[in-house]
Amino acid sequence: MGRIAKTPTPPYYAVIFASERTEEDRGYGKMADKMVELASRQDGFLGMENANDEGLGIMVSYWDSLEAIQRWKENAGHQAAQERGKSGWYQSFALRVSKVESDRYFEI
Amino acid sequence: MGRIAKTPTPPYYAVIFASERTEEDRGYGKMADKMVELASRQDGFLGMENANDEGLGIMVSYWDSLEAIQRWKENAGHQAAQERGKSGWYQSFALRVSKVESDRYFEI
Repeated sequence: MGRIAKTPTPPYYAVIFASERTEEDRGYGKMADKMVELASRQDGFLGMENANDEGLGIMVSYWDSLEAIQRWKENAGHQAAQERGKSGWYQSFALRVSKVESDRYFEI
Repeated sequence: MGRIAKTPTPPYYAVIFASERTEEDRGYGKMADKMVELASRQDGFLGMENANDEGLGIMVSYWDSLEAIQRWKENAGHQAAQERGKSGWYQSFALRVSKVESDRYFEI
């Protein structure tokens, strides 16, 4: 439990990152954990949801502004991980920046 | 491969559905497959990405307009699945409608 992000009233921003991994696994788990920790300490970070299925990972992170997304993109530790991702871990990915206009929650 | 959606040039819309399941599993897989098939035949459907991790599922579907999303929400087969989801399969979920403003692809 607790893996669904509790975000404020819209509008806010979502970065949708869908990735297919290569066979190369070295250091990936450690980097992923570190990136979650780094992101959550950034100004404007609102939450994150993450699911890894065989072959496909989806990570959605939520932010209060496009500026916060830009700062996260430029974060030095994150940039190093982005480079390492493209040269080894990822076969392909799609990264989409979107503005959340409405949301709805359900809980038993 | 092929599990990352190929979407047109933005803007378009993303519905981000993050869910935590109950222990109740009966009929879920069959319904999920049927919903993917139903959605992909809707007008305005652009693609879908889907990852199920232990306990958390993320499904992102892409649409060309808010009207297309509304029609999908009102689809009779989909409505039946929504009801069954709330009365049995889902412990909790968050559903967010967002407008994709930019995207970026990477492929080896």
